[in-house]
Amino acid sequence: MLLSALREEVLQANLELVRKGLVLYTFGNASAVDRRQGLVVIKPSGVDYDVLRAEDMVVTDLDGKIVEGKLKPSSDLDTHTLLYREFGDIGAVVHTHSEFATSFAQAGMAIPAFGTTHADYFHGPVPVTLPLSDEAIKGRYVHETGLAIVARFKGAQAKLDPMAVPACLVAGHAPFAWGKDAAAAAHHAVVLEAVARMAYRTLALNQRAEEVSQALLDRHYLRKHGAAATYGQG
Amino acid sequence: MLLSALREEVLQANLELVRKGLVLYTFGNASAVDRRQGLVVIKPSGVDYDVLRAEDMVVTDLDGKIVEGKLKPSSDLDTHTLLYREFGDIGAVVHTHSEFATSFAQAGMAIPAFGTTHADYFHGPVPVTLPLSDEAIKGRYVHETGLAIVARFKGAQAKLDPMAVPACLVAGHAPFAWGKDAAAAAHHAVVLEAVARMAYRTLALNQRAEEVSQALLDRHYLRKHGAAATYGQG
Amino acid sequence: MLLSALREEVLQANLELVRKGLVLYTFGNASAVDRRQGLVVIKPSGVDYDVLRAEDMVVTDLDGKIVEGKLKPSSDLDTHTLLYREFGDIGAVVHTHSEFATSFAQAGMAIPAFGTTHADYFHGPVPVTLPLSDEAIKGRYVHETGLAIVARFKGAQAKLDPMAVPACLVAGHAPFAWGKDAAAAAHHAVVLEAVARMAYRTLALNQRAEEVSQALLDRHYLRKHGAAATYGQG
Amino acid sequence: MLLSALREEVLQANLELVRKGLVLYTFGNASAVDRRQGLVVIKPSGVDYDVLRAEDMVVTDLDGKIVEGKLKPSSDLDTHTLLYREFGDIGAVVHTHSEFATSFAQAGMAIPAFGTTHADYFHGPVPVTLPLSDEAIKGRYVHETGLAIVARFKGAQAKLDPMAVPACLVAGHAPFAWGKDAAAAAHHAVVLEAVARMAYRTLALNQRAEEVSQALLDRHYLRKHGAAATYGQG
Repeated sequence: MLLSALREEVLQANLELVRKGLVLYTFGNASAVDRRQGLVVIKPSGVDYDVLRAEDMVVTDLDGKIVEGKLKPSSDLDTHTLLYREFGDIGAVVHTHSEFATSFAQAGMAIPAFGTTHADYFHGPVPVTLPLSDEAIKGRYVHETGLAIVARFKGAQAKLDPMAVPACLVAGHAPFAWGKDAAAAAHHAVVLEAVARMAYRTLALNQRAEEVSQALLDRHYLRKHGAAATYGQG
Repeated sequence: MLLSALREEVLQANLELVRKGLVLYTFGNASAVDRRQGLVVIKPSGVDYDVLRAEDMVVTDLDGKIVEGKLKPSSDLDTHTLLYREFGDIGAVVHTHSEFATSFAQAGMAIPAFGTTHADYFHGPVPVTLPLSDEAIKGRYVHETGLAIVARFKGAQAKLDPMAVPACLVAGHAPFAWGKDAAAAAHHAVVLEAVARMAYRTLALNQRAEEVSQALLDRHYLRKHGAAATYGQG
Repeated sequence: MLLSALREEVLQANLELVRKGLVLYTFGNASAVDRRQGLVVIKPSGVDYDVLRAEDMVVTDLDGKIVEGKLKPSSDLDTHTLLYREFGDIGAVVHTHSEFATSFAQAGMAIPAFGTTHADYFHGPVPVTLPLSDEAIKGRYVHETGLAIVARFKGAQAKLDPMAVPACLVAGHAPFAWGKDAAAAAHHAVVLEAVARMAYRTLALNQRAEEVSQALLDRHYLRKHGAAATYGQG
Repeated sequence: MLLSALREEVLQANLELVRKGLVLYTFGNASAVDRRQGLVVIKPSGVDYDVLRAEDMVVTDLDGKIVEGKLKPSSDLDTHTLLYREFGDIGAVVHTHSEFATSFAQAGMAIPAFGTTHADYFHGPVPVTLPLSDEAIKGRYVHETGLAIVARFKGAQAKLDPMAVPACLVAGHAPFAWGKDAAAAAHHAVVLEAVARMAYRTLALNQRAEEVSQALLDRHYLRKHGAAATYGQG
C-alpha cells in the first residue's frame, strides 16, 4: 500500500476535526501531499468518521487522477489538488463547515485580526474570496473554488504568503486551511474557528473595534515562527 | 406486533435527535409511514427518551385512529398524518423545538439560503408559515398546524416541492422536517438546526448578507440528489 | 431525621440543575416545603454538588429558623421562606444564575412569550422585578428580594397567578422558579433557561418579533394543565 | 525538589482551566508565588495539558530567572513576575484566552458590573488596559503587558485594589486573573468568563442596560469577603 504513514496522518487530522467539534456528520475533509512522489492522500467522500480507517484513504496524483483506493475521493478533491499545485510550500489541506468561520464566509467578510490569538497564527486578516460567477459554478466548480482562493493570495489586488496566512474563506461556502503537514493544517482549522468565534463576539460588542497594530501582528507571528521563535519547547 | 422494523427505525430517529442535542426532556417526536398498509408509527406522548422502546411506539391509520399501542400517541399526531396525506412522497416526519430553527420560527422568518451547507439539503430558503388565526387555534389546532405547512408548499403564492425543501417552520412554534424515511427525516432536522445556527450568525455579522445564487443552489442540490449525484459512495 | 423523603427530593432537584448545565460551582439552590409540618428543606450554603448528600440539607421553619442540620442554609433562605408564606400553593423553590435567564434579569427585561415552548409552561411573559432600592439592599436584603418578587404577582399593577407563571426574574440578579414539588420547580428552571435562550435569539433576529396570541397561550397552557390536559400519559 | 506542594497547586489550577473549558490546546497558564522564599512556580511553555506533571513546573525568582526546571517557562512569565512585584497581596496569577473575556479585551471594553454574579467576585467593572504602544510592543513586550495592567490599578486615573477586583483585560489580547492562591486565581478566571458571557448577552438585549448600584456592589462583595461574610460554611 502506497504512503501508509501519510494515510495515518491524514486519518488523524480528520479525527482531530471531529474531536474539536468542527464537523457535523461527514461535512469536512483533510488531505496531505507527498511532494517527492507527486501523490495526494485524501479522505473518501461521505464515509462516517467512526468507521474511517487509514486504508480507506484515496491516493491520487496532483491532477486528481486516482492512483490507489476503492472508494471515491472527497468531492472537494479538485480544490485540494489545485492548492497543492499553486502553493508550493504547503503539505496538507483541511476543509470544514465549522460554524463561525462558515458564517463569516456566508457573510462575505474576512476575519479581522482583533487580537493576539489571531496574530499567533495568522499574520493579518483571514481573507474571503469573491463570490463565484454563474459560469464558474456551472463549469469546473470545484476547481474554480480553488482558483478563487488562489486569486486572493496571488491576485492583482494583494500578495499574501499562504504560509503566513494559512487559511481562506470561500464566499457563500466555508473555510479551507492548510499547513506544512496534516497535523498543522487541522490545528489551523481549529484555531481559525476559535478566532472566528471571538471576532464575531468582538464585532457584536463593538462594531468599530480596531484591528491590532502591525507591530503586534509582527511580534506575535514571529514569536511562534522563524528562527527567533520563543514559544514552546522548540 | 405490527410493523416491527418501522418501529425500530422510528425509535432510532427519535434517539438521533437526542444524541445531536435537538431535544430537551420530551420536546420532540418522529414518525414514519408504511404507505402500502396505510399505517403510521409514532412516538408516544411525553415518555422519557431513556426508557423509550420500539414496542412503545403507537400505530395509527392515516387519519390518526389508533390501531395498536397501549400509550397515547404524540400530541402532534394530527400534523404528522396530514403531512402524510398531502405530501405523497415523504416517508417520515420529525418535529423538534431545536434552539435556532425555533428562534427563526418565533421571529416569523424563513431561513435564507446563505451557503452551500444549506444548498446541499434545501433547494431554496426554508419557509415559515403564516401565524395561525384564533379560529384555527381554538378549533382543530394540531390539524390546522399541518394545514399552515401545506399552504406554504401548495398555496397560491408559491409552489414548493416538499422533497426539494424537506422542512418548514411553523410561526410562533418550531420546525417540522421530513424525508424518504425516518433516518433521512432526522438527518434533515439535524442539518436544519446547523443551517439555522449559521444563518443566525451570518445575519448578525451582516444584515444585508446575500443569499447564494440560483446556480449555486442548483449545483449543490443536484450534487447530492438525482441521477447525476456525485457525493458519497452511492 | 426529619423529612427524609423530602431531603432526597431536594437533593435530586439540586442535582438536576447541575446535569442540565444551569449551575457553575455552587451558584444555585433548591428547597421544598412540608406544608403540614410547616417545615422547609433547603440546600446548605456553598457546598460542592459532588459531595452533597440528602443528610446535608438544612431544615428550617417557615420563618427560616433552623430546626435541624449542622450546616448553614443557603444564603438565599429568606427569599425561599417568604415565597412559601406568600404563594400558598407552591411546594418548592429553585434559584439559579443560569446564563440566559440571568442576562434578561440583568437587562431588566421580562421574557416575552414568543412561542409554544414558552406557552406550554408559562401562561404569559416571565416578569422581572423592579430594581431594589438602596434602603432595601442595605436592610433585610434577601427578604426584600422576595418582596420584590411578590410585588410583581400581587402588586397594584397586575395580578399574576404564581402557579400559571411559575418563575420570576429579579432585576440585576437572576431567576427564581417554583412548582408543586421539587422536581417541578427544577423542571421549570430548566425550561425557563431554554425559553430565555430562544427569546434572546428571536429578538436578535427580529427586534419587533411579536408575542404569541392569547388564544395560543391559552391553548398550550391548558394542553398541559387542568382537567382537560391532553399531553403525556397521565 | 523545591516547592513541591506549590507545584501541585499550580498544576491543579492549570487543569481546572481545562476542565471548565477555558483553554484550547495550550493557550493558558497559571503560576503561584512563595513570598517567603521569593520564588515563582509557573507552567512550562506549550506543553500539552494531558501530559503535564507537577515536576514539569518551572521555578524562577521574582525577576524571572530560572532557579529549577528543565523546560522553558510560559512565554508570559514576565507579566506574572511583574504582577507579583507590584501587587503584594496576590499569591497566584492565571492567564487564559477564554472566549468571552477575550472578546471584551479585543473590543477594548471593560466588563460592566451588571449583576450579583459579578458583584460576588468583582467589586466594580473589570477594567481593560490601554492598547500597548508600538514602542512597548517592540521593546520588553511581555513586561510592558504587565505594566499596562498595573497602570489600570495604580495609575493617575483611578486607584483599584487588586484584591477587590482580581482580574484585568489586556486590550487586543486577553484576561489575566489572580487571587490569594492558585485555586482562587483559577476560580476567578472561570467566574470572569461566566460574568463576561452574561454581560455580553445583557448588552445584546439592552444596549443601555444599567450597572448595579454601589449599594449592591458593596452588599455582595462583603457577603463573600471580610469579617462579616455570610456565604459558605467558613
